[in-house]
Amino acid sequence: MSDLEPVLNQAETNLESSLQTLFELVRIPSISTDPAHAGDCQNAAQLLSDYLATLGFDASVRETIGHPMVVAHHDGATPDSPHFLFYGHYDVQPVDPLHLWTHPPFEPAIRIGAKGQKIISGRGTCDDKAQLMTFLEAVRAFKEVRGTLPARISIIFEGEEECGSPSARPFLEANKEELKADYVLVCDTGMWDEDTPSICAGLRGLVGEEIKIYAASHDLHSGGFGGIAANPLHIISDILAGLHAKDGTVTLPGFYDGVRETPAELKKVWDELERSKPHVLDQVGLSIPVGEKNRSMLELNWARPTAEVNGISGGYAGEGFKTVIPAEATAKVSFRLVHDQDPLKIRESFRAYVRSKVPADCRVEFVDHGAAPAVQLPYDAPILDKAKRALLGEWSNPAIVTGGGGSIPIVGDFGTILGMDALLVGWGNADDRGHSPNEKYNLSSFEKGIRGWIRILDAITTP
Amino acid sequence: MSDLEPVLNQAETNLESSLQTLFELVRIPSISTDPAHAGDCQNAAQLLSDYLATLGFDASVRETIGHPMVVAHHDGATPDSPHFLFYGHYDVQPVDPLHLWTHPPFEPAIRIGAKGQKIISGRGTCDDKAQLMTFLEAVRAFKEVRGTLPARISIIFEGEEECGSPSARPFLEANKEELKADYVLVCDTGMWDEDTPSICAGLRGLVGEEIKIYAASHDLHSGGFGGIAANPLHIISDILAGLHAKDGTVTLPGFYDGVRETPAELKKVWDELERSKPHVLDQVGLSIPVGEKNRSMLELNWARPTAEVNGISGGYAGEGFKTVIPAEATAKVSFRLVHDQDPLKIRESFRAYVRSKVPADCRVEFVDHGAAPAVQLPYDAPILDKAKRALLGEWSNPAIVTGGGGSIPIVGDFGTILGMDALLVGWGNADDRGHSPNEKYNLSSFEKGIRGWIRILDAITTP
Repeated sequence: MSDLEPVLNQAETNLESSLQTLFELVRIPSISTDPAHAGDCQNAAQLLSDYLATLGFDASVRETIGHPMVVAHHDGATPDSPHFLFYGHYDVQPVDPLHLWTHPPFEPAIRIGAKGQKIISGRGTCDDKAQLMTFLEAVRAFKEVRGTLPARISIIFEGEEECGSPSARPFLEANKEELKADYVLVCDTGMWDEDTPSICAGLRGLVGEEIKIYAASHDLHSGGFGGIAANPLHIISDILAGLHAKDGTVTLPGFYDGVRETPAELKKVWDELERSKPHVLDQVGLSIPVGEKNRSMLELNWARPTAEVNGISGGYAGEGFKTVIPAEATAKVSFRLVHDQDPLKIRESFRAYVRSKVPADCRVEFVDHGAAPAVQLPYDAPILDKAKRALLGEWSNPAIVTGGGGSIPIVGDFGTILGMDALLVGWGNADDRGHSPNEKYNLSSFEKGIRGWIRILDAITTP
Repeated sequence: MSDLEPVLNQAETNLESSLQTLFELVRIPSISTDPAHAGDCQNAAQLLSDYLATLGFDASVRETIGHPMVVAHHDGATPDSPHFLFYGHYDVQPVDPLHLWTHPPFEPAIRIGAKGQKIISGRGTCDDKAQLMTFLEAVRAFKEVRGTLPARISIIFEGEEECGSPSARPFLEANKEELKADYVLVCDTGMWDEDTPSICAGLRGLVGEEIKIYAASHDLHSGGFGGIAANPLHIISDILAGLHAKDGTVTLPGFYDGVRETPAELKKVWDELERSKPHVLDQVGLSIPVGEKNRSMLELNWARPTAEVNGISGGYAGEGFKTVIPAEATAKVSFRLVHDQDPLKIRESFRAYVRSKVPADCRVEFVDHGAAPAVQLPYDAPILDKAKRALLGEWSNPAIVTGGGGSIPIVGDFGTILGMDALLVGWGNADDRGHSPNEKYNLSSFEKGIRGWIRILDAITTP
C-alpha cells in the first residue's frame, strides 16, 4: 500500500479546498421535485461540470426531458485500463417543514453534532452532495500526485433522483455506447456504523404513484350531504387501509411475484448483526416494528418489498374546523421492490385495486411518479471482494455486505439498459437525517470517504 | 290578513336599503374558525348591534370566551305579548379553495344566477347573513308602520356557529334569566324547493373531533424505514376506514343509543317527497347514495346520525413526490346526531376506538371541536301549525314539515339550558352552495323571506 500514501496524503492536504467546493454545491437549493427550483438544478449541474473540467475531464451539462445530466470522461493510465462509470445525484429533497431546521438548510457549515463530532450541516450533504464529492476528491488526489487516473473513469450525475428519475431511462437509451463501462460505482448509501463500512449488494426498486379521487362537483356541507354523498376521504382511507393485511403483507394481487426468499445463511448473518447493535427504531423514538412478521428489520429493509403511503390530503386542514365533504382527495403511495419484481406489473395491480374501490359515480386519476426495478450484485462477484479488502486499510472493522432499503432508480436502469452491475459504497450514517430537517454528514465520513475511494480505486484497478 | 298589507308593502319599499345593510355585513370577512379574522367577527357584531339600536332595540355587543354575542331586546305591543328569542349567526365559513370563486367572496352584488334568477353573491349570504336579515327587516317593517312590534322580541346573534359554538354554553348559562323566552325562532335552514317553504322540526346535533397521530421523532426516509417504522398515515387510514361497516352503519360501540326509528307515517311522507323531485345527488354530480341502506335520503339526512371525515393531512402533499414516512398525521371527523344521542358519550366512544387502534409506541392527541345534542320540536306543537298556515299566504304550496341535516349547536343548548323549543324557518335553496365557493342567496328568498317572517310573526302572536 506504500504507493498509495502520497495520494492519501494529498487528499488530506486538499481538505480545506474540498470543503469549499462542497459548500458551493450545497448552497444551491437544487430541489428537483419543485418546478420553481429548475434553475437551481441547472446551476448545480453547471458547477459540477465546471469542476470536473478543472480535474481534466471532458465534461458537459447535457439536456434531458427534465433536469440536466452531467456527463464526463477521463482516460486511464493505460489504453487497457478498466472502465468505471461513477454515478451520483446533485438534486435534493424539499426542506419542509422548514421551522424544524435549527440552521438554514442551504447555508452549509462545519458545526458540532449531537455526539460532539464535527459535522457538515445542510440539505443534500448526506444525500448526495458530500457523498459524490468524496469520489471526485479521490480522483483529484490521484490526478495531482500521479498526473493520471488509475482507471478510465466516466461520470454521470443526475438531477432527478429525488423525484423518480423520469429522464434517466430515455437518456441512458440514447447514450448507451457512451456510458457503457465495466461496472457502475455509486456513492449514495451508508456505513453499517461509524466504525464499520458497508458495501451494498442490492438496492430496492421503486414505484411512485399518486391517486386523486373525485366525487361531488364541489365541496359539500356535511350537514346537508353527510351520510348521503360519497366522501372521497372515506374512499381514500378505505383504499389505503386495505393495502396491508393484518400480518403486515401487502395485499395487491401478484405483489410478491419475483420476490426470492433470502438464503438461510445470509439471513443468519443479518439476524446476528441485528442483535449486535441497538434497535434501529430507538434512534427515531419507536420500538415496535411494523410490516411482515418473523423477519429481522434488516431483512425487511434489505430484501423485502413494501407499500408506504407518503402523503394524504383532502378537506379542511387549517386551524379550527370545517364541516365539509370535500370534492376530492389525494394520496401519494410508493412501493419498494426487491429482486425480480416487475415495477410495471405492480403499478397495474395497484391501479386495478384502486379502481375496484372507487364507486361508479366517482372518478380516479393516477399520476405516474416513476418506476425502477431492484438491482442485485452477485454475492460472489470479484469486485465485491476487492473492495471489501481495500476498506480494511481504512477501517479496522471489516466491511459488511448488506442490501439497501432505499431506491436509486437509475441504478436499476444501468442494469436493464446498459447491462452493468453496480458496486455501492457510501459513508452516510443512520443519524444523518436524509430527507428530514437538519440533514448533516459527519466530517469524518467526508475525510475517510475520500481515502476509502482512493483505496477502492487502487484495489479494483489492480488485476 | 288585510291589517298586514301595509307592513308587507313597507318591506317592499325598504328593499333597496335592506340590501345595502346586508351588503355592508357581507363585506366583513367574519371567518370564525380562523384566529386572524377575530377583528372581523368583532366588526360584524358591532354592525348588527348598531343596526338593532336604530330599530329601537336595547342592543349590545357582549364579550364571551371567544367571538362576541349580539344581544338585543324590544318590548311588545302590550305587557302580556308573547316573547320570542330570535337566533342567527354572523360568522361564516372559510373561503378556500379561493381560486374556485368566480367573484371575490366578500364583494357582494346582485348578479344573475345559473337559472337566470337574481341572486345575492358572497360568502355568508345564505349561511347566515341574508337569512338573519330577513327577520330584522320584517321587524323593521312592523316598527315603521305600527310604531311597535307584535310581540316582545329578543335577539341573539352568535359568532361561532361555524366553529362549534364553544362560547354558547357558558354564555347561555350565565344569562339564563335574560334570554329565556316562550320559543326560539331560527332562520338558518332552507326551503323544500323554490316554490315550497319548509318548517324544520328537528336539527341534528354535532360532535367535532380532531385526532393527531404521532409516530417517529422526525420524518423518515421510506427507503430506510419503510416496512419497519410505524407510518401515521397507515394508522389514520385504518382508523378512518373502520368507522363504517359495509352496510353504511357507524361501527362505534353505543353509537345508535338514543336514536329513535322514524314513525312509519312520516317515513311514508318523506318517501313520497323523495320520489317527487329530482335526486338530490344530481345537483352535485353524484348518483349513488352512500350511508345506511334501505332508507330514503331524506330520512338519512333528517333523522339518522352520521360519521364524516372532514379533512386529512400528513406527509408530502406538494408538487411531485417525496418518499417520506411522516412523523405525524391528522384528521378532522364530525358526527351528526339525532334525537337523544348523547354527544359526550359518542365523543368518548370515538376516542376509545381511536386509542385501541394506535400502536403502543405511537401517540394520539385529541382536539375537542365542540359538541351539541340534536333538537326536536314535537310534531303537534301549536306554533308549528300556526306558522304553517301563515306561510300559505306567501307561497301557494303548503309548507312541508322536515328535519334539518345540519347542526346549529346553540339551538340544542337553548333546549337543554333554557328549556325552549325552537321553530326553524329559513329561505335557503339547495343550490346556494353554503360552505362552498360561490355561495349565493336568491333575491326572491330575501324578499319573500322578509314577507314570510312578517306573516309568521303576525300568526304566532295571535292567540
